[in-house]
Order: sequence, then C-alpha cells, then structure tokens
Amino acid sequence: MSMSKPRPATRTAGLDDPVTRMFTSVLAQPDMMSFGAGFMNPAGFDVAGVRAAFAAALADDEAPSTLQYGLPEGSARLRNAIVERMAALDVPTEPSEIVVTTGATQALDLLCNALLDPGDVVLVERPTYVMPLKRFVLAQARLISVPGDEHGLDLVALEAAVHEHRPKVIYTIPTFQNPSGTTLTAERRQAVAQIAERHGVWVIEDEPYRELYYGGEPAPAPIASHARESVVYIGTLAKTVAPGLRVGWVVAPAKVAQKLIPVKQAMDLNTSTIDQAAAAIYLEGVDWARRTSELRAVYAVPMLAMIEGIDQVLPSGSSFTRPDGGIFVWAQLPAGWSATALLERAIAHGMFFMPGSVFFADVDDDTCLRLSVSNHTRESIAEGMGRLEAAIAAVPAVAT
Amino acid sequence: MSMSKPRPATRTAGLDDPVTRMFTSVLAQPDMMSFGAGFMNPAGFDVAGVRAAFAAALADDEAPSTLQYGLPEGSARLRNAIVERMAALDVPTEPSEIVVTTGATQALDLLCNALLDPGDVVLVERPTYVMPLKRFVLAQARLISVPGDEHGLDLVALEAAVHEHRPKVIYTIPTFQNPSGTTLTAERRQAVAQIAERHGVWVIEDEPYRELYYGGEPAPAPIASHARESVVYIGTLAKTVAPGLRVGWVVAPAKVAQKLIPVKQAMDLNTSTIDQAAAAIYLEGVDWARRTSELRAVYAVPMLAMIEGIDQVLPSGSSFTRPDGGIFVWAQLPAGWSATALLERAIAHGMFFMPGSVFFADVDDDTCLRLSVSNHTRESIAEGMGRLEAAIAAVPAVAT
Repeated sequence: MSMSKPRPATRTAGLDDPVTRMFTSVLAQPDMMSFGAGFMNPAGFDVAGVRAAFAAALADDEAPSTLQYGLPEGSARLRNAIVERMAALDVPTEPSEIVVTTGATQALDLLCNALLDPGDVVLVERPTYVMPLKRFVLAQARLISVPGDEHGLDLVALEAAVHEHRPKVIYTIPTFQNPSGTTLTAERRQAVAQIAERHGVWVIEDEPYRELYYGGEPAPAPIASHARESVVYIGTLAKTVAPGLRVGWVVAPAKVAQKLIPVKQAMDLNTSTIDQAAAAIYLEGVDWARRTSELRAVYAVPMLAMIEGIDQVLPSGSSFTRPDGGIFVWAQLPAGWSATALLERAIAHGMFFMPGSVFFADVDDDTCLRLSVSNHTRESIAEGMGRLEAAIAAVPAVAT
Repeated sequence: MSMSKPRPATRTAGLDDPVTRMFTSVLAQPDMMSFGAGFMNPAGFDVAGVRAAFAAALADDEAPSTLQYGLPEGSARLRNAIVERMAALDVPTEPSEIVVTTGATQALDLLCNALLDPGDVVLVERPTYVMPLKRFVLAQARLISVPGDEHGLDLVALEAAVHEHRPKVIYTIPTFQNPSGTTLTAERRQAVAQIAERHGVWVIEDEPYRELYYGGEPAPAPIASHARESVVYIGTLAKTVAPGLRVGWVVAPAKVAQKLIPVKQAMDLNTSTIDQAAAAIYLEGVDWARRTSELRAVYAVPMLAMIEGIDQVLPSGSSFTRPDGGIFVWAQLPAGWSATALLERAIAHGMFFMPGSVFFADVDDDTCLRLSVSNHTRESIAEGMGRLEAAIAAVPAVAT
C-alpha cells in the first residue's frame, strides 16, 4: 500500500482530433463566420408546431405515460408514424422492424454495438462524414474507403473492395452525401443492394438529407427499397423537425430489430419518452409536403448562392460539387495546395470551413474542403466567399 | 456470384435474457400486478412544473437555441445547475468536470466505451442491477462479484478481489442499492475510496435513489466526496423529475471528462437539447427540498407497506432487507426453494416480481427475489402480498 498509482488510460485515441478542438475555440472568436458545422437554420424551425406538440404530450391526460420509462424499441405511436414516413419512401415496413434511437448518431452507435467486433472491416465512402468514422474507430473496426464520382459510389471499386476485404458492413450516405453532396443514382442503388445480397454484407444506409432536394425531383428510393434483408436504414427528424429533438430510427429486418432492442436498452433504456411523444404528435398533425417544401425554400437559397459564389473564388484548377440538395458543397484545390494552410488564412480573414482531411478514412489528402450552407443566407454566403477569396489570395503561391 | 449468403451474426449474446422477454408478455396480461420494474409513480410527477419548463424552453426567444444541436458535454446552463446539486452532496465540482448524458444508463454506456477494453475486469456487487451487467457483457468485460451485507460491500472481500483480479473498474450503487436496498456506511465509503486510490482502480458510483430516504436522514456523502480523482459519479433526474426525461450526468476529474466528450459526441452528438433546456429551467426554479420531500412522502408509504407485508407471507426461514430508502426490497427464500418456480406460480396468481438470478454476475443462485414498490400504494401492496402468499402456498413442499 504505497502512493496512488496512475489510472489506466481511457480508450479514446483518435477521437479527439485537433480540428474539432480548433473548431470550438475558433467559433468563439467574434465576427467569425462558420461554414463548418451542419447547424440548421432557425428560420426552418416550426417553433409553434413543436411547442404545441410538447404541450400536447405533457397535457394532464398524457403526462403520466409521457413522463414514465418507455419501451426500448420506442413508443408504438411513434413507430407507427415512422412506418407511414417509410412507406412514402417506397420502403414498406412494420412497427416490429423499427427501433427508435436518440438521433441518427445513436442509430449508428447501436449498429456498431450490435454488428461489429474489433477487427471487422467496414467499407465507407471516400470521403465520408467524420462522426461515423470516429464511431467506427471506437468499435476498433478496420476502415477501407471506396472512391466514387458525381453519381456516388463506384460500383467496380465497391465490388473489388468487397472481394478483397470481406467487409461486414458497407456504410453509405446515398443522398446529398456528407461531405461531398453527391447522390447515388437509382441504378447504382439497386446494384449496391445486389452486391450486398450476393456477398452477405450489411448495408447501413444513412439518409438524413433526403427531404432537402432543390432540383424539383426527390432522390431515388432508398437502397432499402431494393433489398430489405440486407439493408439497415437510418432515418432522423433532425433536419425536418429539429436537431435538438434527437429522434432517429433504424429500420431493419424484424429478426435483426428484435436483436437490437436489448442492446438499445443497455445503451440508454429508451430515447426520451417526452421527445418521442412530441415527435409522434407532431408527425400525426403535420402537413409533410408543406413542411418539407418550406424547408427546401429555406435551404435552396444558400445552396445556390454557394454554388455560384464558390465558382468565383476558387483558384484556377479547382473543382467542386454542385449538389441537387442537402447542405454541403465539397471543393478540391489544385495539386500542391493545402486546405489546412488555406484554413489558417481563412480563419485570419474571419471565416471557417471543414478541412477535407477529416473525412478520409484511410487516405492522406489535404486538398479538399467542405462548406456547409445550412445556417446561411445569400448575403452571408457572399460575405463569406469574399473572405475566402481574400484568404486564397493571401496563401503563398505554390508550385503545381 | 451465387445464392445470397447468410448475414453475419449480431453481437448480442447474453443480452436478450428470457426474463426480460417473459416480462413483456406477462405484463400484457389483464389484472397482472407488477412488482418487477422500477417504473415510477405518476403521483410523484410534477406535471405542471415539467410542462412549464418545456414551455419556457420552447418560448420564441429560447427556441432557436433549444431546437439546435448542442455541445456534446451538455449545455452550460444545465451543467451549472448540476454543479449546484453536486455541491449539496459535498462533491464540489465545476462545469468542466460534468458531461450530460441521455439518462444514467447512457452515462454507464459512455464510461464503458471510454474506459473498458474487452477482457478488462469489472468488480460488481453481489447482487447488482441487471442493466449494468448487460452493458458490461456488451463491453466483453470479465465480471467478478463481491459480496456484502446489510451495510453494503464487504471491504475485506473487496480488497481481496482487487488484489486477485486487478480490476479496471469497481461498479457500485452505494445508496439504497438496486436490487438489495442496502446502503454503504460512511466509513465504508471512505474505505472504498482509499482502496481505489491505492490500487489505481476507477470507482463508478451510481446513485439514482439518493433523494428517496425515509428514515429522516439522507445517506452518507457519496464516495466521490472522499476521492475525486478515483471516482466517476453518475447522477440522474429520472427519480426526482421524470424517468421519461432521460437526463443524467457524469462527474469526473476534468482531464477524464475532456476525454469523455468526443466519445459522447460519437454516441449521440448530444443529449436532447430540448430536454436539457427544460431540465435546466426546472432545476433553476424548483424548491428542491420541497420537491424531494414530496417524493419521499409518495414512496415511503409503499416501502413501509412492503416491509410489513413481505414479513407476513414469506416462508419460514426466509430473510429480506428493510431498506431506509429507494424502491426495492430483496428477499431470500429458504435453501431448496426456487424463486423461478415461485415466479411461475406467482404469475398464475396475478403478480410478478424479478427473480434474483438475473442480478448475479457470476454465481448461480435461484433463491432470491426483488420486489419493486415504486408504482404501488399501501392497498395494492396488500393485494400483491396476498397473491404472493397464495403462490407460496401453491409451491410444492421441498426438502430443505
């Protein structure tokens, strides 16, 4: 019995990246314009509708059940409302195939807990959203990225990676992808479903941005509509109702959903029954077509402004995506440029973007940047692009 | 490219126990009286107070931030309110030492993700709450249970287990323990803290029932008050405000808390900002002494009724705990009796309890039962004990 010993290390290596730390301190600077995070525009919040839904959920006759513990799989009422939403996406389902989660992020957390063992291979898009990458690192998965083009995943590369690496999971954001903004075509969705079925691989299909389409036509039906037995679909109300609500869901074959339930229970017993009750009441009462049309009106404006604006300021030899929806534009600087170096200059000029390097699982690429339009107006994008232009001008010339 | 292959197995072995499955179907039977789950009594819900807090959180001036994404560590406002609550428990802390979680269950989920690697040893109480056992199984931890008595953990056995098994974590519910109802004395709390410090082991101290004391005096200060650097404390509003709210928290040394934040972010980005805002507003406005006094009045009655009632019906040679607080009574049948067999009879007589076997990590003991008083009145306990008595009478006599 001597001196106190050092505590064992926490298992968090690789999670606390310098970009996230910088993010927080940079955003605290006055007059900083952020094109970094996917914060949603309060102009798109249906404050009165959400407030009314919470009031109804906490009315005297509802409160005793609203305030109580709930089922780990989620309330029957909310799962019924989700069944209706999924049916509208050509994914016929039943309440027994749905598990409500604390946002789409916890849906992935749940799937990692239930499906992955350390060392399992997960195929991801090159690039892909940083948060799933962190979660897969926590699961000690082996990450292999698959390239794509403006129409999403490259099928030849996908099939080759499946053959070579024998993955357990293919993780994809097929619609207005984060960070690239690209959308997988209908033909490729069907092909991804077939590849998964043939090889006995799970597809985790994450679709938070579906309703934010600006081209007049919604995206093709989910991959899940082609192969229910091979696909676990993740949905969320974050973009359509409110990010703060933290209500998401998994749609999985009933046998799988039944196995997810005790895992979900061990994770947080159940998602807030208050939020679930309000979400169900909201979904039952809302005019969905009108609600999502209002959202598209809010977000189409900054997206179009960004596509126009970025075109004016990127150095010659750059490229960028022109998404039909969602909230992200992805740009690639000419060879020899460093997005990290540009970010330093951009911060000095009062604007912030996400350096592309954080979205790569297994390649070293510092030429890309992600620009979020979600919390911007036409005017603020013009101002931000002006600042980016000044930053670009201030970066020392490089050999190409 | 041939027929579809079987999907890889899900990693859920040991989580979906038959008791939980039975639970759900049994509770659906008409006229079934449950003494199983720890559901809270709606008579203890401050419906008007909670409703007002949500209305305030969603008022026009608050809604834009309430509905937005939040900080992974939780809102500053709520963490400040939690600092005040912890100070009242003799655990002086700062907002930087607090991480808000989606209930106490997710606090443990977070700690498992951050602290445990497969194969790590976790010491638990014999018996202990079933849900942490499931979560530790999911973490592929090696579970070793430590016996105790009516004053909580046996210190000699604890120190011997620490020596022999070199655990990473000691998990304990020191106050009105689930399922035993016992409370660790002040002296033992200090000793547990010292053992943890000496050996470089984490104590995870889970205290959901603290405010439900019926003997006039609160329980001794948390273990965390004796050894801040070795203890991670888990608190929750489930029992004091509402289980449906799913707002819990971790108090950890600042260095550890900072490492928990990116893990929490990878788990669900942040706990519902709506629930957090409402919880903060509620805590700021509530008369805590009065609120918890009201709760004690609600739950003391069925606890006393249970202690009286169970004494009348258990077979000769049984023993049971007489908790000073909380919601659970733990009973042990005479040698040779089977709680599982009794449960079958009890269900046939219209009452349900939790068989004790699910609360044991590593011993095979079918003589115990846990009785929850939380959603009962004096009258319903009298009725339930009558049914239990009839069930006991119907169990075939056994050799002792």
